[in-house]
Order: sequence, then structure tokens, then C-alpha cells
Amino acid sequence: MTTQMIILNGGSSSGKSGIVRCLQAVLPDPWLAFGVDSFVDAMPAKMQASDEGIVFSADGKVNVGADFRALEAAWMDGVVAMARAGARVIIDDVFLGGAASQQRWQNALGDLAVLWVGVRCEGAVAAGREVARGNRTQGMAASQADVVHAGVLYDLEVDTTHTESLLCARTIAAHVR
Amino acid sequence: MTTQMIILNGGSSSGKSGIVRCLQAVLPDPWLAFGVDSFVDAMPAKMQASDEGIVFSADGKVNVGADFRALEAAWMDGVVAMARAGARVIIDDVFLGGAASQQRWQNALGDLAVLWVGVRCEGAVAAGREVARGNRTQGMAASQADVVHAGVLYDLEVDTTHTESLLCARTIAAHVR
Amino acid sequence: MTTQMIILNGGSSSGKSGIVRCLQAVLPDPWLAFGVDSFVDAMPAKMQASDEGIVFSADGKVNVGADFRALEAAWMDGVVAMARAGARVIIDDVFLGGAASQQRWQNALGDLAVLWVGVRCEGAVAAGREVARGNRTQGMAASQADVVHAGVLYDLEVDTTHTESLLCARTIAAHVR
Amino acid sequence: MTTQMIILNGGSSSGKSGIVRCLQAVLPDPWLAFGVDSFVDAMPAKMQASDEGIVFSADGKVNVGADFRALEAAWMDGVVAMARAGARVIIDDVFLGGAASQQRWQNALGDLAVLWVGVRCEGAVAAGREVARGNRTQGMAASQADVVHAGVLYDLEVDTTHTESLLCARTIAAHVR
Repeated sequence: MTTQMIILNGGSSSGKSGIVRCLQAVLPDPWLAFGVDSFVDAMPAKMQASDEGIVFSADGKVNVGADFRALEAAWMDGVVAMARAGARVIIDDVFLGGAASQQRWQNALGDLAVLWVGVRCEGAVAAGREVARGNRTQGMAASQADVVHAGVLYDLEVDTTHTESLLCARTIAAHVR
Repeated sequence: MTTQMIILNGGSSSGKSGIVRCLQAVLPDPWLAFGVDSFVDAMPAKMQASDEGIVFSADGKVNVGADFRALEAAWMDGVVAMARAGARVIIDDVFLGGAASQQRWQNALGDLAVLWVGVRCEGAVAAGREVARGNRTQGMAASQADVVHAGVLYDLEVDTTHTESLLCARTIAAHVR
Repeated sequence: MTTQMIILNGGSSSGKSGIVRCLQAVLPDPWLAFGVDSFVDAMPAKMQASDEGIVFSADGKVNVGADFRALEAAWMDGVVAMARAGARVIIDDVFLGGAASQQRWQNALGDLAVLWVGVRCEGAVAAGREVARGNRTQGMAASQADVVHAGVLYDLEVDTTHTESLLCARTIAAHVR
Repeated sequence: MTTQMIILNGGSSSGKSGIVRCLQAVLPDPWLAFGVDSFVDAMPAKMQASDEGIVFSADGKVNVGADFRALEAAWMDGVVAMARAGARVIIDDVFLGGAASQQRWQNALGDLAVLWVGVRCEGAVAAGREVARGNRTQGMAASQADVVHAGVLYDLEVDTTHTESLLCARTIAAHVR
């Protein structure tokens, strides 16, 4: 059964974006890539400072509200529809709610053929990479490193702590049908 | 009938993106914004230098190939599905094929309630704004200014030549149900 | 006497950056462009959330501290040295202190041949363009529109309220020796 | 003798920018960061497609011309003047000419107290990171990995192949007086 979607889940600065770009390079077919970052970019700027939208706290905590959840549900439905219409799609997400976040995707996915990938990175290493990215807000990487994986079921996991993005991508690509 | 999608069409540097951000600010509901730029960003980097994907020539001409068209069709279906699922969506696009490009959207839209908006800007003014944006490639604005509107039918048109983005957005917002 | 530096001063969203890029395009010699934005980018990220550095408040107010001022003085000396060494340089700055900000530049400039340019934009129009740029923080344009010009002396002024960046740039270029 | 400038040299995708941001975070004083990328950004856009300026070829080769060299010499003088005026400065550069590039800096530096740092990364690993960054042009990392170090003398070298940016930065910071 042909893989129609790849969903990567991992904490901030765990290396998801780099793996996505490598996947797009090594997979022979053209895959579209979307994720929580492009979704947030699509929202009105005013929602990025609203309790109903998404709030990034100074300590790295992230909270989302009702408007965010409503738009996210429609966005998930739309992304799944793209895949049903024939586009192969890679998603990178941050499951702030762990298993509950995965369930939200499953509600939208139906019987779509998905490859679930956990992207791990030791919290201390991810925190260091957060510094290297120059983010003014420190703390997101450390606070998300473990909690996003709680109760989530994967087809495979990769760990960027000691493995380059391109190698992780090749491991994932080997599981794509 | 509630407007479910707003589709803006205009040439490069005609001011679409600024109008979109103003629409997101002035419309009371939260609207998601997507467009040809975010679609191209979602494609593999290698498709941006491939005849099957999209090629930006040194003279400002843009050509797209079969892979681009196939992914675009699925992307349109997905965006429409987001709107059907309850997200209100603003699209900004460049109808390189004029009426044929509009037809591609109509094939995906079905009976969705869409507000069609033409974004005009005099070619010479758009070309000047292209310089102000610092694009290395000049010529896209001038070559697209008129051709993207050929045969396209709109609910309303705005012209950024002498009107600020925010005023154009308010005019459009007044037509949203 | 050959113009060695052009210094543009104007409030946020008054259109300075667009004019700079147009100047670089229309002036026959290659001019280097620096400004308060590239200076802030050169500072440690941690200074962008420190009272000693620079703080952007939620209402659009901007405050700078002692470390900012010390680095800025050295930066100004360095930029002037580039011009003395033969590079023609365009600066765009925001004179939060009005005449006092201009005096800081004059202390560094010595007898360098400078063209002083005021970039005006009506506050309401600049505020609208701030919305169009999608900044999450509104208020900077309105709060800076007039105060940055208080007591500042110019060789010429341009006004982007009703004039395109490229035309403003051509007016300025005509004053370059 | 107080270190006034840190100059990092390494090939494309060797990890210089990440190390610079970590240095700015771990060094107690505020250091300004400039480099070949911010210098190229300061040039007119038209110089980025001119033989007199800088040309990035499709195979990853980079060539610079006479205008580039003239502006670069003035820029180096200006950066050194900033350091003499009291700003501590970190530079990241790509010595396309190896020892000859280092000599250009030495001509500008005089007796300034500089810490010279070589940033190594195995070519194959740097090429993989180039893919992960999503650059459309592949080949720059591989073609620069070794040649930029030819004949260059360092105070210390770091290698990002198996060492995180933050650890490299701490090693460098320990050599700063």
C-alpha cells in the first residue's frame, strides 16, 4: 500500500525541518511539506498574541486556544484531502498534547496510509541547538523534548542527537512504500 | 450566503500580500491565508530548478511543468476542503494562464461561496515596487501586470496604483458576507 | 565634493528600506547599505530583551540602554571609516532622539561629505502600511512618525505618502555629487 | 591583551553561523557579529548577478570581481575601526583564496588583537547539511570544505563534524582574553 503521508513529530529544535528538506531531496517523487510552522504563518498576525490563538511565553511555554483548535481541525482535514487527491505530503508537527494530538490527526486521517515518525533529540542537545539558531526565547526545546512523545505510537523513530538529518531521512525513506 | 473563500489574483508586485495581511487584520473572524508563494515553498527545492516544476527565468518569465500542475491540482482540492471544513480562507494567486487559471480553481471549488477579487496595479508602478523589494530579477511585474487578468471574471477589483493596501482591504471586506 | 554617505532618517514603516534598495539600483556606483535594522541583527539575541540593550514594547515603543549606545557609537565610527576607505555608504536610521540622534552621527562623521535626507510619511498612512507588513506589534509607525524629525536638519526631504519609493530615490539621487 | 576580534573561517555549511550565535550567547560581554553574508546583503542586488560583483554558479562555485574586492577592502577597514572604537567583533568568513584571503584581513588589522579560528567539517557531512538547509544549489559545501583552509594559520581549530555548535563555542570562548 502506497504511503500517502509521512507525519514527523518532535520537540522544538529536534531537527524536524532539516529532515523534511532531506526527505524532499532523497525521495524520488515530489512530496509537499507542511507543518505547524506554516500553519501558524497562515493565521492572522493578531492570533499570535491572543489567548484564543497561540501564545509563546518568555520561558518557552506554548499555549493554544479555541480559535487555534478550530482552524487546526479544518487545516488537518484539508491536508488529508490534498493527500487523497494524489499529492504525497510530509507533515512536521509538535504534539504538545502527546497522544491526544496524535488522536486529532487520526480523526482526520481515516484510512489514509500514514508513516508515523518520532524525531527524538536529547533535551540538552536540542537546547544547545536552540541557542545556535539564535532564538531570543530559550526553553522551548527543553520543555518539549520528552512531553511531545508521551503515549504516541510510531512506525519508526529517529534520533538526531548523534545522527545527521540526511541519514535520518534515508532511514525514513527506506520505510516509504 | 456566507463567504467561505476570498481569491485575490494579480501580477507580481501588485500588492496582494499586503492586502491579504490587512484583510486578516480587519476581518472580525480569523481567516487563514495561503497562496502561490506558500505552495511553492511547500514543494521540494529541486522542483524550483526543474522544467517539470517551476522555473524563474533571468528576464522575469515564469514557466511551470507537469509535476507542478499535478501537485497544484491536489493542493487546490485540499484548500477547498479546508474551507468546507469551516476555515475561512484567503488565497492570493497569479493567474499566469488568465481565464484558464481561474477555470482550474472553479473545477476544485464546486459550489463553494467565493469572492473573486482582481488586484490591479499599473505595470510601471509595479515594476518600481519590484525594484524597491530588492528582487535581483527584474521584469516579472511588468510581464504579468496585464496578462494575469485576461478573461478573468471578478466580483470586484481594487487598484493599488494610488490606493493603500489597507483601504483596498476595507473595500474588499465590505463585500464579505 | 563627492558625496561619501547618504543618511536617511524616518519613522518605522515610512518606506526607508524600499528607497534604499531603489537608490542602490539607480545610482551608477555600487553603494553599501547599512542601518539600524542590520545593526540590531548584529547584536547578541539576548540584548533584544534586555534593558541594557533594546526593548520593543507591546505598544510599539522602543527603548535602548547603555550597552546599545556604547556599541552604536563604535558601529558609527566603523561605518564612517568604511566611507573614508572609499566605500560609498547609505544609512537608514530612526532618530528616536531627534536632533540628539543626528548629533551622535555628526560626532562620528567629522568632515565626511554627507547628504542628509528626511523620509516623511503621514502617521495614518504609515500605520496602515505597518498592518500590511503583518507586524504583530502595532503602534510603532504612529508613535515615531513625527518625533524622529524633531529638530533634525536635512539637505532634502521626501514624502512617501503619495510618492513611490523609486521616484523618491530618483529625487535623492539627483542631489548626489 | 584583550581579544578585540574573533575571525572564524570555514566552508559553506560548516556551521559557522551557529557557532557565532552561541558565542554571542556564552561570552559575557556583548559582541557584534558580521560576516561575508551580511556584507553581501549590504551590496546592491544588481552586484549579485554581475561579474564585477559576486556570482553564484549552478554547480556551487562562487566568483567575485573587482567591485566586490574594492568594497570588501573598505568594509574590512570599517569593521576593524569598530573594534578599535571599543566594540568587540566576531567575523565569519569564507576564505575562498585561503592564505591570500587571510592576508587581506591582516592588511586591515594592523596590531589589533585577533583570535583566528578554523571551523572544519568533513566535506560529506557539510554536503548533507547543505541538503538539510534546503539550498537549491548543491555543491558549495563540498567544493569549499578544504580549499578555504589552505595555508591559513589559526590560534585554534574546531570541528563540527561530531561536535555541537555550543561546545565548539565554549572551546573558543575559553581562548578569549
